[in-house]
Amino acid sequence: MNWTGSGDFDTYPVDHEITGATVDERTVRVNWDDGHVSRFHFVWLRDNCPDCIHPETREPMFDITLLQEDLSPRSVDVTPEGGLQVVWSDNEHCSHYHPGWLRHHCYTNSANGQNSEPVLWDSTASIELHRFSWTDIVVDKAVETSWLQSIATNGYALAYDVPVTPDSVAEVAERIGVIRDTNFGRFWDVTTRPDPNSAAYTGIKLPPHTDLPTREYQPGLQVLHCLTNTVDGGAPVLVDGFRVADEIRERHPNIFQLLTTVPWDFGNRSRTSDYRWRAPMIGLNADGSFEEIRAGRFLRVPLRAQFDLVEPLYDAYRLFESLSCDPRFQITFRLEPGECLIFDNRRVLHGREAFSSETGERHLRGCYVDRDELHSAIRILERSRRIQRVRQPDSKQG
Amino acid sequence: MNWTGSGDFDTYPVDHEITGATVDERTVRVNWDDGHVSRFHFVWLRDNCPDCIHPETREPMFDITLLQEDLSPRSVDVTPEGGLQVVWSDNEHCSHYHPGWLRHHCYTNSANGQNSEPVLWDSTASIELHRFSWTDIVVDKAVETSWLQSIATNGYALAYDVPVTPDSVAEVAERIGVIRDTNFGRFWDVTTRPDPNSAAYTGIKLPPHTDLPTREYQPGLQVLHCLTNTVDGGAPVLVDGFRVADEIRERHPNIFQLLTTVPWDFGNRSRTSDYRWRAPMIGLNADGSFEEIRAGRFLRVPLRAQFDLVEPLYDAYRLFESLSCDPRFQITFRLEPGECLIFDNRRVLHGREAFSSETGERHLRGCYVDRDELHSAIRILERSRRIQRVRQPDSKQG
Repeated sequence: MNWTGSGDFDTYPVDHEITGATVDERTVRVNWDDGHVSRFHFVWLRDNCPDCIHPETREPMFDITLLQEDLSPRSVDVTPEGGLQVVWSDNEHCSHYHPGWLRHHCYTNSANGQNSEPVLWDSTASIELHRFSWTDIVVDKAVETSWLQSIATNGYALAYDVPVTPDSVAEVAERIGVIRDTNFGRFWDVTTRPDPNSAAYTGIKLPPHTDLPTREYQPGLQVLHCLTNTVDGGAPVLVDGFRVADEIRERHPNIFQLLTTVPWDFGNRSRTSDYRWRAPMIGLNADGSFEEIRAGRFLRVPLRAQFDLVEPLYDAYRLFESLSCDPRFQITFRLEPGECLIFDNRRVLHGREAFSSETGERHLRGCYVDRDELHSAIRILERSRRIQRVRQPDSKQG
Repeated sequence: MNWTGSGDFDTYPVDHEITGATVDERTVRVNWDDGHVSRFHFVWLRDNCPDCIHPETREPMFDITLLQEDLSPRSVDVTPEGGLQVVWSDNEHCSHYHPGWLRHHCYTNSANGQNSEPVLWDSTASIELHRFSWTDIVVDKAVETSWLQSIATNGYALAYDVPVTPDSVAEVAERIGVIRDTNFGRFWDVTTRPDPNSAAYTGIKLPPHTDLPTREYQPGLQVLHCLTNTVDGGAPVLVDGFRVADEIRERHPNIFQLLTTVPWDFGNRSRTSDYRWRAPMIGLNADGSFEEIRAGRFLRVPLRAQFDLVEPLYDAYRLFESLSCDPRFQITFRLEPGECLIFDNRRVLHGREAFSSETGERHLRGCYVDRDELHSAIRILERSRRIQRVRQPDSKQG
């Protein structure tokens, strides 16, 4: 079968054949060779008609406001190529659905999965298990996929053998997606500097925090490339904020309730900007799963809260801070020149040990990339695997 | 009084004097010359101690995990300068609070306002009321403030007299804040082009939509600068999505419930990227106010939903689309060279009439800026007004 069917840019291997199609009162029933039965509502099928996709942009064009009342199929057939053909009551419009596309999008008794589930960790985690050679990443899609999946599920990964040049951080970041610019610049050099506008630019110990909780859109991924490191101390510390949140949910449900619902005030001010955001420290998705953590004692402005909540909120905050500073949740390691650490800034809190610039030099270069750039990059790698399967149809049962 | 007190970068005029301070079981009570009484919890005051702010970064340093159990003041006093001094039970640590700062941050019986409230509009709105001269904006802070407030409350504003050069859009956008890069580039030229990867780059009619509902982080503001426009048609159409949502809330509460809670599938695919996001079409804040709208029939991928919800969801979507295409919610106007339209992309749906490139040339140049950049810019203008008041203390009662 040499038509892509959906008209979109993706590829849908045909793992199952359509054995028959019938119509009931509200849906088209599609029978498959593995016994599965899909039911597609008329409106869903009409809306997703591949013949109504713009031939160049490949974007859907169907106008729902023109949907015929009581739309129904005049006929449904399995075509000689194995697709589904529906002729509709509105002007005999004819739609052709590719079987791979149709099975992929079946919503009858199937899970509607989102992105990868996070795997939580504590101090027993090891950075050694999440180290990848940059040389391999750029030539081997399987290694690249593992590296990206590690960031998606684990919340961090480390690439080594990255060339020790100022441009490398861009090369690593752009392999994932578009770089996120902020008031700190597209790239920032973490060194000690005079007149610092952030604690990052001093040698002081940084408690575990997320970057820019002060922004409505906290940056998704932080990319940190080590160019020089000869100082004593300064080791990065990582904490799985979702693991800490999970501990609080299990053991302190009342505090969990406060931390997930009552906003704190975050802020970052300079002479020319004044960013502030109010949000709970633990953000949940609609289904109750963890969406993001916001934390950083040096990135807060005075709490504005209902009078009677002030003391309970501080108790909750103190617990959160104590746990994220507890070694049983932390991993730490020395970052060497040529190593590039990437972590999910909305999940993994990062800190660093204090260091003195008198003992040597320390220079990290960093940037941000948003979280859905990672999901896009993973999908494109998955697409290329599917294209390979379609080109080698014998492996389709494998 | 010549100390800024809080240690942060802001300025707090002293509109009220402290007349006395006492301690009760849990709070420090501060009496003001206008009769107001503030109560500050010990932990709040200790956490916000201005003497624990880093002298350079001006970020707070206090470590909540080291908070003394049963912390309380040894003494509270009004200083000769009019500030509040607290000596604490933990090592006689001494904190000095500036009266302007303290009153500004009082959380006793005071509203905890966020950003400007939106003012909703329909087809009776007029772009004429929201036009500002760029020449004035750049020299007059009052005009600049009105322009930005118009975007914040109204959701759009138009600047005219903007130089007709390709760089102008950056100049306008950067007056507000950092430009948001995407896979479409930091800047994009809206013209008809061969092999378009978006409906924007064709001459077809665009129904009202938001840009990039396909992204977890929808861009906040869209900046569109007109460089050339000699075609027939192609006029922009704006719709206040919050107004449409409000109509649905009032008249179709069941549909409102569906549109605010059940996610739709948005997607934008190309040969090298695959962005998708699942979210309700109407996003609400925790307090039930409108956060954002996601809409765009050509930016959807097949809906994945619970089987029994598919038809009700399509009914809801059809209503939303019909209302946003209804002229009673739309304004339209011709965009002339030198005009720069800015609108809140997460609130104001935009579309355009069809045009044919055979009738002339049409060239808009655009970019995105996130919504909290606007809030920061407004705060900096407010700060500069406060600085002026402190420099001219006679006007403080004005």
